Amino acid sequence: MSTYEDRLKALREELAKRKLDGFVVPLTDEHMSEYVGAYAQRLAWLTGFQGSAGSAVVLPAEAAIFVDGRYTLQVREQVDGAHWSYQSVPQTSIAEWLKEHAPQGGRIGYDPWLHTRGWVKAARAALAEKGAELVAVDTNPVDAVWPDRPDPSKARLIVHADTVAGKSSAAKRQDVADWLAARKADAVVVSALDSLAWLLNVRGEDVERTPVALAYAIVQSDGTADLFVAPEKLGDDVAKHLGNAVRRHPRNAFAGFLSELGGKTVAVDPERAVAAIFETLDTAGAKVVEARDPTVLAKAVKNEAEVSGHRSAQLRDGAALVRFLHWLSVEAPKGGLTELAASDKLEEFRRGTGLLRDLSFDTISGAGPNGAVVHYRVTEQTNRTIELNSLFLVDSGGQYEDGTTDVTRTVAVGMPTAEMKDRFTRVLRGHVALARAVFPVGTRGGQLDVLARQFLWEAGVDYAHGTGHGVGSYLSVHEGPQRIATFGGGDEPLQAGMFLSNEPGYYKSGEYGIRIENLVLVEAREIAGAEREMLGFETLTFAPIDRELIDVGVLSPAERAWIDGYHAAVRERIGPQLEGEAKAWLDSVTRPL
Amino acid sequence: MSTYEDRLKALREELAKRKLDGFVVPLTDEHMSEYVGAYAQRLAWLTGFQGSAGSAVVLPAEAAIFVDGRYTLQVREQVDGAHWSYQSVPQTSIAEWLKEHAPQGGRIGYDPWLHTRGWVKAARAALAEKGAELVAVDTNPVDAVWPDRPDPSKARLIVHADTVAGKSSAAKRQDVADWLAARKADAVVVSALDSLAWLLNVRGEDVERTPVALAYAIVQSDGTADLFVAPEKLGDDVAKHLGNAVRRHPRNAFAGFLSELGGKTVAVDPERAVAAIFETLDTAGAKVVEARDPTVLAKAVKNEAEVSGHRSAQLRDGAALVRFLHWLSVEAPKGGLTELAASDKLEEFRRGTGLLRDLSFDTISGAGPNGAVVHYRVTEQTNRTIELNSLFLVDSGGQYEDGTTDVTRTVAVGMPTAEMKDRFTRVLRGHVALARAVFPVGTRGGQLDVLARQFLWEAGVDYAHGTGHGVGSYLSVHEGPQRIATFGGGDEPLQAGMFLSNEPGYYKSGEYGIRIENLVLVEAREIAGAEREMLGFETLTFAPIDRELIDVGVLSPAERAWIDGYHAAVRERIGPQLEGEAKAWLDSVTRPL
Repeated sequence: MSTYEDRLKALREELAKRKLDGFVVPLTDEHMSEYVGAYAQRLAWLTGFQGSAGSAVVLPAEAAIFVDGRYTLQVREQVDGAHWSYQSVPQTSIAEWLKEHAPQGGRIGYDPWLHTRGWVKAARAALAEKGAELVAVDTNPVDAVWPDRPDPSKARLIVHADTVAGKSSAAKRQDVADWLAARKADAVVVSALDSLAWLLNVRGEDVERTPVALAYAIVQSDGTADLFVAPEKLGDDVAKHLGNAVRRHPRNAFAGFLSELGGKTVAVDPERAVAAIFETLDTAGAKVVEARDPTVLAKAVKNEAEVSGHRSAQLRDGAALVRFLHWLSVEAPKGGLTELAASDKLEEFRRGTGLLRDLSFDTISGAGPNGAVVHYRVTEQTNRTIELNSLFLVDSGGQYEDGTTDVTRTVAVGMPTAEMKDRFTRVLRGHVALARAVFPVGTRGGQLDVLARQFLWEAGVDYAHGTGHGVGSYLSVHEGPQRIATFGGGDEPLQAGMFLSNEPGYYKSGEYGIRIENLVLVEAREIAGAEREMLGFETLTFAPIDRELIDVGVLSPAERAWIDGYHAAVRERIGPQLEGEAKAWLDSVTRPL
Repeated sequence: MSTYEDRLKALREELAKRKLDGFVVPLTDEHMSEYVGAYAQRLAWLTGFQGSAGSAVVLPAEAAIFVDGRYTLQVREQVDGAHWSYQSVPQTSIAEWLKEHAPQGGRIGYDPWLHTRGWVKAARAALAEKGAELVAVDTNPVDAVWPDRPDPSKARLIVHADTVAGKSSAAKRQDVADWLAARKADAVVVSALDSLAWLLNVRGEDVERTPVALAYAIVQSDGTADLFVAPEKLGDDVAKHLGNAVRRHPRNAFAGFLSELGGKTVAVDPERAVAAIFETLDTAGAKVVEARDPTVLAKAVKNEAEVSGHRSAQLRDGAALVRFLHWLSVEAPKGGLTELAASDKLEEFRRGTGLLRDLSFDTISGAGPNGAVVHYRVTEQTNRTIELNSLFLVDSGGQYEDGTTDVTRTVAVGMPTAEMKDRFTRVLRGHVALARAVFPVGTRGGQLDVLARQFLWEAGVDYAHGTGHGVGSYLSVHEGPQRIATFGGGDEPLQAGMFLSNEPGYYKSGEYGIRIENLVLVEAREIAGAEREMLGFETLTFAPIDRELIDVGVLSPAERAWIDGYHAAVRERIGPQLEGEAKAWLDSVTRPL
């Protein structure tokens, strides 16, 4: 196997052959996916970086890797500082770095299937200040030097039954057709993988943890669609499910199809479609209308079947998690239990439901200081033993046909310190304040963010991540457009039917991490005498919150009542699925405070 | 005196003479001021509308007046529906209305000294869709048909002593020069009247309630400035105070001066400078750099002298208000007291301080249902008697050399209803939550807005205005850039030294209004164990909050402690300025709940 040094050298030689003075390597795929298949893991192959977000730039004499605050430590452990300089985004953007470092008059390559047009414009403008040029490549030079690069997954598409989806693909496509009519457009490109899966009521196995299939779709103004997918991935069941109104084409016919849309008005999402799609349409003479993918909001507002399915998934998943938490309460104090053993056991309980299709993300199993690493992923190298008198944080979820779950619990093993209890109680009070919030229609997630942070702020502390993200229905565990956050993406008004996570936290670097995460459903609230249409949250996740970490004395009566009510609901809904010691344990840990 | 019908007819004849098919009449001046001098009250002269914000459009056969939600009722009372159609902004913009109503191929006039360039672009684009044209006029056609139009004020400028301002104009101009150097610009246009007053440490008497002078300034990269002001307004004292580094020019030389800046790089604020300034510079061949007026943020972050002056003004103003509230508590229950009599009495107490320069805005003195009119201004026609068993809302403030105040109190006369107490207590709890907030550096006002609304939202009610605005130092009572609000303008990070109002409310149309408003100072907070630089608010306004309206039982211990602590501070700071019955009354109404 080649070393990372060899790989970098090989890429530089390839660039020289192509007369390029540099190349940009992002971590995404042709669909701007957050998680990508093995075939698109170019950044990991080239640099060794295993995080879920990052980019690299290779120049003839230097190379840089760009990661955000979550990966500041990890990148230094995984990527060789002798060959790579570490850059932090958003403090340093690739465009700015290129402006400083690209050779005057140089040609910097990029793969137009892996960047948004917005990125290309910004990078091109920055390079222009240096007299340098941004050059689209026809084929990715990393692929040329990656001999054992995996092929894209050949997994077959899976029918997602209309009964589970709650709405047929034909009905969804008709909504898209109405949307096109309102915009006087002829067609819309659906390139995001979860959008396509939702629109066609199909799922896939092409990306780990996210049940999507590698494909593109174009919906026409008559509600029919053109689907671009490798033919071997389409079984008869899926072909029948899709019907004649969904015309099938090979995936590699997509660009050619786009180039025949001259004269048509085509809607494309600038945040979700790559630059190559825009460029192909522009070259073809199509009229491109920038608009948010019409499935994005429709997908976020869940229908009755999706909500009902999610409730079932939560009861099943909650029972698995409670079995695990009971097991942990027995095993951890004995000593010697590792993060890997714990996450394996949790997966075993989830598999025991008989209905788990996949985890919804790699379990974050963080003992002591590893709990403070927000996007920690346990490996053989980092695997810690859960020690007595420490905190253990476990953030996990399952993919079931009827729903996607995401839950975090933090438990004390042995005796927590007074500071741990203080911080945990502040996180919990924020969680409760958000869970209890009532707000008028039109309120955006960003407005509610402070509710979850206020008690931490009183102590001069905070957490450096968002408070809530959307969640799919047997789809992406991170789904937009709604979000509860201080910066970036909290601008979408919340609507009844949206799922969100409620996950404040606190992280003390080198010591411990705390996060309490439930999923919630935005619901209409009837209030006597109300003068506005109001909304609130129904909590959907059921698992006990560690009472040993709660400073009961500082809770308000309303906070205490919420926790007791929540625990009563956990006992009522999860208890009947348990037996013996696990049931007794649940009864005990969910008794009123 | 001509009727409004005559005036509209005269304007239409004038437009016909000028071959215009329409004209837009905004309510602002050449400085985009919120409040304007009598000479610029064209909208009121033409239509009869007395509100503080609005616009009109006159076409040959129809005319429309555009106001926001605050003035929906008022415009119908003051403006004749037979000649004017009522339009609501922002639901209908002038640009959209023109697109519908302007004659195909028509020429619609506008005064480029009364609109931003952004407005001109939007209106021009909308008209272009109709094949119509937006045409800049050389002189305002309203002025041509307004025979007794007042001249601009000839009031002299007033020296604002450096000791009160806390920083010399030379030092402020040097900061602007440094700002120019960082942007490689040669000069910046300062056209906002409060910016100019702050920059040169001068005040004026050209606009009621806001102590500004009609003038323009251009600051050069060497820290000198060119001031454009009518020569008769400049006394020797001001000339001496300004010094030689501030070159004086007649106000009407401003446009000519701009047209000689060809080849220079000139910074101009697109939100504060009118279109004519941009157009003149563009025509002259200057390079225009769009940037926020550099005095805006500097002015908002108060220095020690300004904070100290403000504290003095608050103690003085608080004593006047407390004398008034005591008087009201005696007189109102007797019956027959009117809104006008009350506001006159309040002004009398403020004048009694001997230091009042002006009110900071027209007092809002709202009895019963008039309290629900958020921007109510009492007139002989609307003047209500304060009835027993009703609420009275008074929002008022003073301009003192050392500070500008703005305070609202709502008091029960007789017995309030349970609903009034419920709503008042929710408003109060929101006020207290915001007053007690602690938040990290970088937090924007918009993030905190929910704290003030949360208890109203629990009951399904809300208020349709912002929660907090900045306040000047013997300047505008509404001052940017910081703001605490749901929409529009809550994006500026709060900084230690900023003043803000804290003014949640509740309004029941046709019945009563509630608002509790104090001014607060953003201050650094030292918290043991804090991991972030934290900020909080110090409340600066001292006047009792009507205890008869508080449901004490629903308060949390922390809320109750805050109110008791606040009342103790009111007693301590205002009490020593009072005597006899007023002092006894204050002691009584500020005792612990």
